[in-house]
Amino acid sequence: MSEVKKIRVTVWNEFRHELKDEAVRRVYPDGIHRAIGEGLTGEIPVEVRYATLDQDEDHGLSQEVLDNTDVLIWWGHMAHKDVSDAVVDRVQARVLAGMGLIVLHSGHKSKILMRLLGTSCNLRWREAGERERIWVIEPAHPIAKDLPEYFELPHTEMYGERFDIPTPLQTVFITWYQGGEVFRSGVTYERGTGRIFYFAPGHETFPIFYDANIRKVIANAVQWAAPRIDRDFSICPMVPPLEDLGQAE
Amino acid sequence: MSEVKKIRVTVWNEFRHELKDEAVRRVYPDGIHRAIGEGLTGEIPVEVRYATLDQDEDHGLSQEVLDNTDVLIWWGHMAHKDVSDAVVDRVQARVLAGMGLIVLHSGHKSKILMRLLGTSCNLRWREAGERERIWVIEPAHPIAKDLPEYFELPHTEMYGERFDIPTPLQTVFITWYQGGEVFRSGVTYERGTGRIFYFAPGHETFPIFYDANIRKVIANAVQWAAPRIDRDFSICPMVPPLEDLGQAE
Amino acid sequence: MSEVKKIRVTVWNEFRHELKDEAVRRVYPDGIHRAIGEGLTGEIPVEVRYATLDQDEDHGLSQEVLDNTDVLIWWGHMAHKDVSDAVVDRVQARVLAGMGLIVLHSGHKSKILMRLLGTSCNLRWREAGERERIWVIEPAHPIAKDLPEYFELPHTEMYGERFDIPTPLQTVFITWYQGGEVFRSGVTYERGTGRIFYFAPGHETFPIFYDANIRKVIANAVQWAAPRIDRDFSICPMVPPLEDLGQAE
Amino acid sequence: MSEVKKIRVTVWNEFRHELKDEAVRRVYPDGIHRAIGEGLTGEIPVEVRYATLDQDEDHGLSQEVLDNTDVLIWWGHMAHKDVSDAVVDRVQARVLAGMGLIVLHSGHKSKILMRLLGTSCNLRWREAGERERIWVIEPAHPIAKDLPEYFELPHTEMYGERFDIPTPLQTVFITWYQGGEVFRSGVTYERGTGRIFYFAPGHETFPIFYDANIRKVIANAVQWAAPRIDRDFSICPMVPPLEDLGQAE
Repeated sequence: MSEVKKIRVTVWNEFRHELKDEAVRRVYPDGIHRAIGEGLTGEIPVEVRYATLDQDEDHGLSQEVLDNTDVLIWWGHMAHKDVSDAVVDRVQARVLAGMGLIVLHSGHKSKILMRLLGTSCNLRWREAGERERIWVIEPAHPIAKDLPEYFELPHTEMYGERFDIPTPLQTVFITWYQGGEVFRSGVTYERGTGRIFYFAPGHETFPIFYDANIRKVIANAVQWAAPRIDRDFSICPMVPPLEDLGQAE
Repeated sequence: MSEVKKIRVTVWNEFRHELKDEAVRRVYPDGIHRAIGEGLTGEIPVEVRYATLDQDEDHGLSQEVLDNTDVLIWWGHMAHKDVSDAVVDRVQARVLAGMGLIVLHSGHKSKILMRLLGTSCNLRWREAGERERIWVIEPAHPIAKDLPEYFELPHTEMYGERFDIPTPLQTVFITWYQGGEVFRSGVTYERGTGRIFYFAPGHETFPIFYDANIRKVIANAVQWAAPRIDRDFSICPMVPPLEDLGQAE
Repeated sequence: MSEVKKIRVTVWNEFRHELKDEAVRRVYPDGIHRAIGEGLTGEIPVEVRYATLDQDEDHGLSQEVLDNTDVLIWWGHMAHKDVSDAVVDRVQARVLAGMGLIVLHSGHKSKILMRLLGTSCNLRWREAGERERIWVIEPAHPIAKDLPEYFELPHTEMYGERFDIPTPLQTVFITWYQGGEVFRSGVTYERGTGRIFYFAPGHETFPIFYDANIRKVIANAVQWAAPRIDRDFSICPMVPPLEDLGQAE
Repeated sequence: MSEVKKIRVTVWNEFRHELKDEAVRRVYPDGIHRAIGEGLTGEIPVEVRYATLDQDEDHGLSQEVLDNTDVLIWWGHMAHKDVSDAVVDRVQARVLAGMGLIVLHSGHKSKILMRLLGTSCNLRWREAGERERIWVIEPAHPIAKDLPEYFELPHTEMYGERFDIPTPLQTVFITWYQGGEVFRSGVTYERGTGRIFYFAPGHETFPIFYDANIRKVIANAVQWAAPRIDRDFSICPMVPPLEDLGQAE
């Protein structure tokens, strides 16, 4: 009997807002990470585990955890600076070696995303609870699978252009905001043999991670970002010539 | 009387090989940086200054020097780790704000290039003094201006694929090696509002930086990488809506 | 005395709407092409000529005219099918050989743009005279030179995603529409050694080609798209080996 | 009982060389198309059919055949001009609607590839039976699955740069030739919702389509290029506003 191989997902959450802010706790009583993880189960064959900033000195991301993670989902907001550089190094190395990384919303200013993209990831923003309409720009992209031509979020935080990112490999989504801005809200990259997806929607006081379309996007992205190869490119090997150099020198 | 505005170039060199290794000193008696800088003069309107690793605690790259640099050329090889992270931060910030950066040869493993590209920049290599033929892939690119369809270097260090870089914005050159490898030897990127060019040829014991074609490439790249805009994207501004949100909430 | 070399621009217009429709004639009494051409003069050193669909059997685009054109600006709307395939072949060949091409608004369905991009260039649309806000996504791109972070058009035709184009080399502008859509409204491509810019704004009954920002974009695009090289790639040459093949066979 | 869905592949071959040239017939007695098709069977779940230029007025590519094709493989060499424009239109429409297209070797000058890419696809060439080494540039790309870092063909036709194609979405392979050239020998594109892969190796008098690595590449490409979505983008729909335009006019 054949068995479908489950994708091993680790959902990482800062998990501070939920503990100190009643408004956040009301929306995400068990933490944003749980809402994200539960959104995956049922959609696709996954094995979900969780890790949080204050869990231990590795923020729950020991080498062993990462070595057993196919796709890491990242949520952070107020404490990006508290993530240790050693953990950022470790996560980067795993992405370069093939692990998928999905960075959500305010994770645009996470150390790990800025490390992998090389830019500030700055943007314009506003919290006015306005409407957002997410347009599918690449309808055939695996991350857009089974989505309509566009979908809406009734109340959202605005993240607007100019978004300081490198030209994406592909821009899967572009958002329209009621207040007058646009945003490249779903963008893909590859670094090393790993795949990266940044997805803008998702605020801590809006129930965005319960939305069916949002959950579908994240589930699609997990499948798209799953490791594709297991080969070591972590050194610069010195190699002999493949052709006879004869009188080279 | 109109005056052509000179591009302010800073050539940065590790400048250690030349001091300790007679073979290197024979080829570049005043340092590789001088050979590179002299190659620019005459070709294009530039104002060249030099900076080296052991010059001072900023490696010659104080904020003031960088603020007055349009294009930074980077050469490093054996001492990448001795470059302070604070200087790397500063250079990165200037690139994001529009300064051009040209990284040469062994600079592929410099902290600054890995910082901006997000990858290991690993590759295969060999020092056998073999022949290299550099093919122009994008003949209309400004960096390829006035070059023939291909040009050769009689003796070179081999840098071969797989080169661990993100998909370039454009691949201007691909190199053929006598020993059987290929290499994306001239690749462009943009980060923030700054432009980056990595160019592979150029070893410390081969007189590559005296070669006419190589000098033309670097001069072309300096012109291509010169700043194009002066605008500050270093913060995430909170902005009011541009449209009436009415009954948003 | 040095003289600035003028860019030779040919503005091509279908020029039928203006002759048959009073509403169009009121806005563009001398034809849309004249408004576009006049917008260039004064902005940049150009030599402008005009060509129209019904001018002669070549639609004013004889081989001689094209051979003396650095940048061709294209406006068409209701009569794309009346453009002869022979003229499309000729324009394509000139773009591949280095001529710049700027396609405006309804030219998205021109034979020449579909020929060069390979796609249908289909989109969603609506004529409701709504507001459009054009966001600058690549502020350092030459086409965005001297533009603010965004600019507005009070009344416009809506062109919305999904726009069936290949992933652009760069997306310079993204538009927000009052009615709820977004659009990649300024996109660049390269084909052969020629550069292509598609720019969405510009309807025949709205005075868009008199707008200062729109004129700046088109003038910037003319400078960006001007030919960069003069080399013939129109054949597949059979070439001898550059290395000794020895016992190859 | 679950059943794997087979990919419906149509291998199209000009099939003239084999009928008139003894040297070709000796290598591909049943036609190149049969060798390609047989290479797929066993590797992946496919249903292969064949079509050839002189089969009927549609060259075996009726609307019905194309509507039932998931991935079309294209081989042509001496008779590109004999392919009717109507069939090219039909194939293009199917690619835009999601059908995969794999173009092999001398198909670089096929009408369909030039139509989809918009360029001449010209290149330098030589028939000297020299050695070719194909380097994997994107090791994690699905088309490179299970390949070594490089692989060789002992005798090949040389196809060299500059290759007149648009900047690829991804460059999966770059080839080294014994005679001194390089070539972007495996490149991907997307047009509409369809995927395109051009793969350079494969001459009519060399037994390249029997090579295990070549067969693996083509089988991988078939899986990568299989349709991902079934949605109609073949018109420009006029749409009502999604937001209240109020006092728009």
